[in-house]
Amino acid sequence: MKKIINSTEEIVNEMLDGIVKAHPEHVKRVEGTSVLKRVNSPIQGKVALISGGGSGHEPSHAGFVGKGMLDAAVAGEVFTSPTPDQVFEAIKAVGSDAGVLLVIKNYSGDVMNFEMAAEMAEMEDIKVEKVIVNDDVAVENSTYTTGRRGVAGTIFVHKIAGAAAEEGRSLEEVQKIAQKVVDNTRTMGMSLGACTVPAVGKPSFTLAEDEIEMGLGIHGEPGTHKEKISSADELTEYMLGKIIQDMPIEKGEEVGVIVNGLGATPLMELYIVNRKLHSLLEEKEIKINKTLIGNYMTSLEMPGFSISVIKLDEELKGLLNAKADTPAFKEI
Amino acid sequence: MKKIINSTEEIVNEMLDGIVKAHPEHVKRVEGTSVLKRVNSPIQGKVALISGGGSGHEPSHAGFVGKGMLDAAVAGEVFTSPTPDQVFEAIKAVGSDAGVLLVIKNYSGDVMNFEMAAEMAEMEDIKVEKVIVNDDVAVENSTYTTGRRGVAGTIFVHKIAGAAAEEGRSLEEVQKIAQKVVDNTRTMGMSLGACTVPAVGKPSFTLAEDEIEMGLGIHGEPGTHKEKISSADELTEYMLGKIIQDMPIEKGEEVGVIVNGLGATPLMELYIVNRKLHSLLEEKEIKINKTLIGNYMTSLEMPGFSISVIKLDEELKGLLNAKADTPAFKEI
Repeated sequence: MKKIINSTEEIVNEMLDGIVKAHPEHVKRVEGTSVLKRVNSPIQGKVALISGGGSGHEPSHAGFVGKGMLDAAVAGEVFTSPTPDQVFEAIKAVGSDAGVLLVIKNYSGDVMNFEMAAEMAEMEDIKVEKVIVNDDVAVENSTYTTGRRGVAGTIFVHKIAGAAAEEGRSLEEVQKIAQKVVDNTRTMGMSLGACTVPAVGKPSFTLAEDEIEMGLGIHGEPGTHKEKISSADELTEYMLGKIIQDMPIEKGEEVGVIVNGLGATPLMELYIVNRKLHSLLEEKEIKINKTLIGNYMTSLEMPGFSISVIKLDEELKGLLNAKADTPAFKEI
Repeated sequence: MKKIINSTEEIVNEMLDGIVKAHPEHVKRVEGTSVLKRVNSPIQGKVALISGGGSGHEPSHAGFVGKGMLDAAVAGEVFTSPTPDQVFEAIKAVGSDAGVLLVIKNYSGDVMNFEMAAEMAEMEDIKVEKVIVNDDVAVENSTYTTGRRGVAGTIFVHKIAGAAAEEGRSLEEVQKIAQKVVDNTRTMGMSLGACTVPAVGKPSFTLAEDEIEMGLGIHGEPGTHKEKISSADELTEYMLGKIIQDMPIEKGEEVGVIVNGLGATPLMELYIVNRKLHSLLEEKEIKINKTLIGNYMTSLEMPGFSISVIKLDEELKGLLNAKADTPAFKEI
């Protein structure tokens, strides 16, 4: 295993320090925890958004802490859910009188631990609501997950619900918007190879020289099948097809897309995918309002990508394009 | 070779299409060329900045086309200099009455072809100046290069000279600022492994399981030596040491830094490097005004990173922090 680290035990702690050093204008550490919070939070009168999960998906989620997105991100160990008490620390650190919305990717551990933290908060009279993101169309149930997994579409929840909170909407309204994003977002991913969890020290699976895994999860969980690698255009067409099969999009409708790199995919290749994605949607007379492209929800150094699509109405479109200022997402 | 592409011949062309589809508010293609230009350019009265080089370094350089940075980027084939006529197309497309500054990374092919394009432009009475970036402290002379290579420090030139141009400074002044950036910027890189140029189809070199290449260039050119991989902290200390040895920085001085991923390095690891980098500079009582972290100047899917440091005075600091709005660099 070749990694640029010091010790496997200190990875998350040192990473969090490094994030704060890089972005002191956006985030600070909550002392003695694995929580990064927005500077100058809590902000009274504003619903606080908190997300998090296992580390190894950077810039998710700490990279999205800042104006118009998250108020705090909780980091677990690599590919491991944060404990309930760490999530509770985040709630205490940024919770305002307007309440807290937890944005949870659908993994059994995350759901359980975030929900326990919510109960702890309620016992201290902090209003907490949640939304569970389950955008992955590849498989029902999987390693670590009952139901569909939460993957890169989570970024749309951060952005859109974050903008609603920034506007001063109520907890009930922000939760409703977040759920609307989840209901209208789908993602499909694929990989050319595995990544190596530092504490494990070897790749989590192997693929042949000409083989890919279709539909895999962001921790290397199995997808739908292995197949021989085909062209970027064919992969894109197949993956968009899976999304549209699950969530029909009519001619004239408007969408946002994320072409997300899993960690080791050259931006060059993501742009080649994006070209085909746009041409397929244009053929269907579906309008693309917004394209996000790059590493948003990664799996350490995994080569591969995912496509996320969100169906937009006027409300979602406005919030998606509202100003944001975070380390990894800026909207001017 | 596993890559998400269609054909090796069409990579650059399809990538450029994909960039424009993703960022229509920032860039457009100059028809029939491999040039991406800023929308609404040329801008009369403003010096036009043009950069470029071989493809495979994305987001460099097209990702930096937009307000406050570049007016055009010229894309060569992968790791291959763009031809003089393509650079000339860029000059014609965005050149204004205020003139054009070419930002050239120091590779023999790039320098020759950009200079030939400058001569072609002068024959048509377009004022052209140039700056050659040679920030890599690792080696003197190398494959493809006489003198020091131009690497990730080029981003500081784009940002700072771009801000000066946006302010309406004269060609002479913008060139002088760009040269000042070059004079005050140093970079050192390392790699854990090679990348694969699509047209070649196999990795450009090999390293043992526990081996790294120190000081290598962004096309996989040899560095100073191979060594056993050490800790992130040790690597960072060594690399910063090389930079400071070449460009002494005194207590009390102020710097900007780039912790740059070469394409396949998890952001997690870059943050661990950043933590140590900050602590080393803080120990020396050097103040860090700005930290850029992520994939700025990549080598396809190469695992590894570089550290760039720029010494800042008040003028450079102001320009570095001026507003910018491009696909890959936004300053609010």
